[in-house]
Amino acid sequence: MCRGFKFSGVAAGLKKNGQKDLGLIYSETPVNVAGVFTRNQIKAAPVLLDMQRITSGICQAVIVNSGNANCCTGEKGMQDAIAMARWTAAKLEIPEERVLVASTGVIGEPLDDRKVRTALPELVNTLDADGVSLLAEAIMTTDTVPKVVARKGSLGGVSFSVTGVAKGSGMIRPDMATMLCFIMTDIAAEPALLKQMLLASTERTLNRITVDGDMSTNDTALLLANGLSGAVINDEADRKEFQDILDAVLMSLSRQLVKDGEGATKLVEIIVKGTKSDADAYQIADTVAHSNLLKTALFGEDANWGRILGAVGRAGVPIQPDAVDVYFDDVLMVKGGMGCGKEAEGQATQVLKKPEYTITIDLYSGKGSSSVLTCDFSIDYVKINADYRS
Amino acid sequence: MCRGFKFSGVAAGLKKNGQKDLGLIYSETPVNVAGVFTRNQIKAAPVLLDMQRITSGICQAVIVNSGNANCCTGEKGMQDAIAMARWTAAKLEIPEERVLVASTGVIGEPLDDRKVRTALPELVNTLDADGVSLLAEAIMTTDTVPKVVARKGSLGGVSFSVTGVAKGSGMIRPDMATMLCFIMTDIAAEPALLKQMLLASTERTLNRITVDGDMSTNDTALLLANGLSGAVINDEADRKEFQDILDAVLMSLSRQLVKDGEGATKLVEIIVKGTKSDADAYQIADTVAHSNLLKTALFGEDANWGRILGAVGRAGVPIQPDAVDVYFDDVLMVKGGMGCGKEAEGQATQVLKKPEYTITIDLYSGKGSSSVLTCDFSIDYVKINADYRS
Repeated sequence: MCRGFKFSGVAAGLKKNGQKDLGLIYSETPVNVAGVFTRNQIKAAPVLLDMQRITSGICQAVIVNSGNANCCTGEKGMQDAIAMARWTAAKLEIPEERVLVASTGVIGEPLDDRKVRTALPELVNTLDADGVSLLAEAIMTTDTVPKVVARKGSLGGVSFSVTGVAKGSGMIRPDMATMLCFIMTDIAAEPALLKQMLLASTERTLNRITVDGDMSTNDTALLLANGLSGAVINDEADRKEFQDILDAVLMSLSRQLVKDGEGATKLVEIIVKGTKSDADAYQIADTVAHSNLLKTALFGEDANWGRILGAVGRAGVPIQPDAVDVYFDDVLMVKGGMGCGKEAEGQATQVLKKPEYTITIDLYSGKGSSSVLTCDFSIDYVKINADYRS
Repeated sequence: MCRGFKFSGVAAGLKKNGQKDLGLIYSETPVNVAGVFTRNQIKAAPVLLDMQRITSGICQAVIVNSGNANCCTGEKGMQDAIAMARWTAAKLEIPEERVLVASTGVIGEPLDDRKVRTALPELVNTLDADGVSLLAEAIMTTDTVPKVVARKGSLGGVSFSVTGVAKGSGMIRPDMATMLCFIMTDIAAEPALLKQMLLASTERTLNRITVDGDMSTNDTALLLANGLSGAVINDEADRKEFQDILDAVLMSLSRQLVKDGEGATKLVEIIVKGTKSDADAYQIADTVAHSNLLKTALFGEDANWGRILGAVGRAGVPIQPDAVDVYFDDVLMVKGGMGCGKEAEGQATQVLKKPEYTITIDLYSGKGSSSVLTCDFSIDYVKINADYRS
């Protein structure tokens, strides 16, 4: 449990189905904070507000709603985001500028802020150190399960905790912080250091996942550190200790996000190696991970490796077509750009029946490597997104 | 009818379902020929063969099979492609190097060339000036309808004809010649001029369509001109006359391809204007046309314009978020980056029920414009591609 943090989640009536849609993160003391936000030029009002406020490096609460993205909502949208923060601050009796805001849901519909105001007393009154699962539930949209992770570490003999919460599960692509993600820790660290560590971790985790290749207008990842454990980063070894735990927390959330991607039935890691550079490997892994033809074949549990080679060949990185190997887990399916026959395909098909596996592509041209987490593309993805607003 | 050309199509047993899978194009006299081929680095054997042979600028027949792409098939694949050409040449009694080859279907399985050899006598014996629909049928894979177009023109009082045939309908993205496409004309023109005109036309038509964003390994577009009409391109006006008709033929085939895209129920033109350059407009149109979230919403007939703005904002072109208008046909749905309300949405929803419509995005930043043809993303797309090889 992260010392000093409390969480809550209630149903304010923003979601049509009556489920929880308003969440709150609160620290007993002000926290140092760092954030990464969507690079989409169309940014939701709460993102624009947070980008201003986070320059202070300090906050004490984050109010989050699902059911409405408060995006493309003009001047009223910004006023609504500010009002959400103001009401929260008043109820918590903290300065208004110490409240950050995040929203997720349908784009382009005005937020009914009266519902938020009405629900705020209950939200604040139910704050609880054990309430993180309520928060995780309240920020879900098309997610089928809440996403939480907790880890512990120690620095100089002082133990500390890290708790992470995230939501997906559509509009996910590997570019900056994807979706909403909140990381709470009771370690002490300056905002600038938190920002460096969050960016480093994001680059290795949240920026290496994809569900459908669409970048959200509301992506926000926040790292909040209140220092209440007494653990402090003093040197490079401390920094590495905390970075490793932060990486593990964000990787866990990343895997949870892709695994629960809209309609997903498979969690697949695309590993590319043997390229001239890591960037080349990433470009190929990214192209393969986004191929709709491959993703539908994965859904069909069909070892259609030709689609992998088709994607490799169009990724924009020079390759040797006769020096491509492809593995499904440990099963060698393609050797030197050609299929390994029916027996290999039978074994590969068994791998494809598993809920999680890797596809490794070796290009024999260098020491570069990279990987991207992706999911399959199912009938339910189409159903979910054809009917999303109805 | 294009003078001097004959066509045929038979069932050779390459397709599991017993439908036509082998087609032939033959000209009574040698033709000047130009081609554009996939830019995918993984190229099928027939593509590699044609790229060599087409440097002569002359051919007389094209043999095409569906049911097997003859790609990632190594040395045997190239031998099979050469053998298909050799057997065809022998039966037609023309030089072997005057035969081009095209294949489409599953990647990575060896071609059963005995089936081709066995079917060749019937294929040659049934060649017919009226047989173009048999050819069109024989090259189909997941296409639900054959794709043929015929146009007429005249140069200096001499009439000429152009006939086009194409197949889709998956692995379609706007990059170079997409899929298989054969254009026959009885005009006279040098190979170099044919190449220029084919490239120009392709840039405006086949390179402006998408079904699923995956680039094929077998893309081939050939333009064959046998000169038998007596019509000759003598000056710039003649050239424009022919280019216009070639454009019309390729645009018709392009629309047919997208309309019959795998699982498609809608044909949608994404028009972007008001950008600093045409290239900027294309980049945005291309991003919107490939958004899975938008394409699934189009399938659901849901005017979810937030997804359009989300794609516009991530396209990599600087925009002003508060200067974006969006129209569904003539219905203004988004003005200045914000929705136009329930009445507009009601009208937009009526547009979305139509089988064909346009989405126009105006960015008020300049005089650039471009467009891309796309289709919706349906449950059937997933079904088709999850089960493709079974």
